[in-house]
Amino acid sequence: MPKIDGPRLVADLRRLAEFGRYETGVHRPTYSPDDVASRQWVAGKFAEAGLEPLIDGIGNVFGRNPSVSRRLLVGSHSETQPRGGWLDGALGVVYALELARAFAADPDCAGLGIEAVAWADEEGHFGNMLGSRSFTDRITAAELAAAKNRDGVPLAAALEEAGFAGRPRERVDPGRFVGYLEAHIEQGDTLDSRGLKIGVVEGIVGIRNHWVTVTGQQNHAGTTQMVRRKDAVMALVKLAGRVYDRFAERAGPRTVWTIGRILIDPNAPSIVPGRAEMQVQFRDLDEALLDRFGAALNELVAEADRAGPCRIETAPMSVTEPRAMDPRFQELIEAAAERHVPGRHLRMPSGAGHDAQVVSHRLRAGMMFVPSLKGISHHWSEDTSDDDIVLGAQVFADAAAAILKSA
Amino acid sequence: MPKIDGPRLVADLRRLAEFGRYETGVHRPTYSPDDVASRQWVAGKFAEAGLEPLIDGIGNVFGRNPSVSRRLLVGSHSETQPRGGWLDGALGVVYALELARAFAADPDCAGLGIEAVAWADEEGHFGNMLGSRSFTDRITAAELAAAKNRDGVPLAAALEEAGFAGRPRERVDPGRFVGYLEAHIEQGDTLDSRGLKIGVVEGIVGIRNHWVTVTGQQNHAGTTQMVRRKDAVMALVKLAGRVYDRFAERAGPRTVWTIGRILIDPNAPSIVPGRAEMQVQFRDLDEALLDRFGAALNELVAEADRAGPCRIETAPMSVTEPRAMDPRFQELIEAAAERHVPGRHLRMPSGAGHDAQVVSHRLRAGMMFVPSLKGISHHWSEDTSDDDIVLGAQVFADAAAAILKSA
Repeated sequence: MPKIDGPRLVADLRRLAEFGRYETGVHRPTYSPDDVASRQWVAGKFAEAGLEPLIDGIGNVFGRNPSVSRRLLVGSHSETQPRGGWLDGALGVVYALELARAFAADPDCAGLGIEAVAWADEEGHFGNMLGSRSFTDRITAAELAAAKNRDGVPLAAALEEAGFAGRPRERVDPGRFVGYLEAHIEQGDTLDSRGLKIGVVEGIVGIRNHWVTVTGQQNHAGTTQMVRRKDAVMALVKLAGRVYDRFAERAGPRTVWTIGRILIDPNAPSIVPGRAEMQVQFRDLDEALLDRFGAALNELVAEADRAGPCRIETAPMSVTEPRAMDPRFQELIEAAAERHVPGRHLRMPSGAGHDAQVVSHRLRAGMMFVPSLKGISHHWSEDTSDDDIVLGAQVFADAAAAILKSA
Repeated sequence: MPKIDGPRLVADLRRLAEFGRYETGVHRPTYSPDDVASRQWVAGKFAEAGLEPLIDGIGNVFGRNPSVSRRLLVGSHSETQPRGGWLDGALGVVYALELARAFAADPDCAGLGIEAVAWADEEGHFGNMLGSRSFTDRITAAELAAAKNRDGVPLAAALEEAGFAGRPRERVDPGRFVGYLEAHIEQGDTLDSRGLKIGVVEGIVGIRNHWVTVTGQQNHAGTTQMVRRKDAVMALVKLAGRVYDRFAERAGPRTVWTIGRILIDPNAPSIVPGRAEMQVQFRDLDEALLDRFGAALNELVAEADRAGPCRIETAPMSVTEPRAMDPRFQELIEAAAERHVPGRHLRMPSGAGHDAQVVSHRLRAGMMFVPSLKGISHHWSEDTSDDDIVLGAQVFADAAAAILKSA
């Protein structure tokens, strides 16, 4: 079996975390100078590992492996959330690098190889999972042309600045790969809170985002009597309270829902707000449940709109369908985990979105989780113990070898 | 009686509205280039009216009147809210200018005169009612030193840029004035909705501002199960709903309450919010009622904090006590209104804060309202008919003459 070099793996992870270091985490938005520098570093490490490095026209970094007959594509994304954690994405990229080295050094794996990838913009600074969608032809030229980040910088300008503009975008050749494998931190506390070491991902939840707009009448907060007001924040707060209650009544055991973003205009202490908006998001593996949540939201919005005095509307923003992982890959990841940590692994859904869900449309795909300490993620304090990082890499390497050998 | 020149009055108001014109309103924050230019224009108009112009070290514009034996200080503020209306403040300043001209031209007013003022920053771009508080010694050097606007520009830098730095700040000499008179648009729809023409202000409501801080745990919106969450927005929304309900139960007929400002961190769609804050404001003429509202808010916050899972705290931000207007001034304004528009005037509180409440600590003070169309204010669409503007000025001039003659 390919043998992981634990200290080398951890050292590379720590080096990668230097790009955009923030507290104990990392601030490395896609195409920022730190992100570009880190992609060049990753390409260099792929080359050192004997792979042919290539950064394509969307910023995906590939470590191509032309010398083997059967290949697994292995990787994750390398940019981070704003002031995010050092392992979210990076772990899967450095696992891919380490597996490439371990497979190359293992005579038992002759002819079997890893092709490594660091996807661009899974975190959606410019567009959700840009890199893997580009690779699998699941993004339109129109969407790419319209993409911009929260500061209004167009994608094209960011790619130009990054030095990636004008290069071709790599597209998947499904015949080239046995499948795609991605390792990631869990980002929840299911493993950590139960002392488990490996999560075998059964599927990735679907995500629905809806935008709710409340239109009232901006006015003076001292002179406008209560009966005359059309206070958009008052209407939004009351609606949001009902949404939380209704969703709680209708949820499955793993459904989650979030109002993460609220915009208020003009958001001034002495002005009755004329406009308030919120993004309502919910996730589950069960598409029928997601449909019921969407219907419940529409119903509550329509009721509140009828009741007045504010106009309230909602529109779906995005729909990500749930995606199952390959059953045979799940079995082989589980078997590898059972050899290393008997009984300390769990089949589970992924509540977060991952590039694997995109790639699964074109390749057989599997995912493996390692524990997140206290389940903290999308925050600079996110962490995983070195022991769990090294153990996870060895289980992942064994699973990759078993998948390649059984293909 | 002093005779108002209606066309001249309206023309001057329209000219003043050209400084920082925005749609049909005005964007003229305190000490902005437009505000500074408008203050210089006002000083020039005061001079044309035979007054001695003076812009002091806080930006207050005075039109001093040394030649009379009895004086009323008359005015309002001249800056605006962001993208605000053309009459809020400006009306009272141009009324003062027109009264000064009318009194000077009226032989019947020999020895009686108007001293005009355009206060700086009633709207609180740098600090609530800076100009009138400076004039009445109700602001500390420490507060002036710490004051900055929402963009973080210090007051001292803004005054330097405006060219007002280094000048002395004028202070009130109470022996110099019979009192202070301020005209203003109502900013509510009490007059407009009932077809009334003049509001006789009985007092200015007290205003309490409280800041509420909810501290949860920022986390990933896909992987953090609902039972594990400390969602600061969920906690804030539920608390705000209870605050609205409790206040409605305990309100008097003219009490108003507003949650105008909410801050969410990080305010991103896929992150469970770790922190949420809101400003809760309420206003009434009755101080005991304001105390009961404050106690109710504290109680609801303490309950929500005990219930968990988020920490919730609140602290008072500012307390403005209710201020009664001078009873004799009220009678004389009412008598003037009754002469011009019998039965079409109303005694009423002011729900908005005004410089008159500050000046009332040092001088006998009175206020008069003209109607606001549809009650709209703090918005560029704010308006009042020309007829009501001219009528209001004549009532105001008569009242001022009666006050000066009876002093």
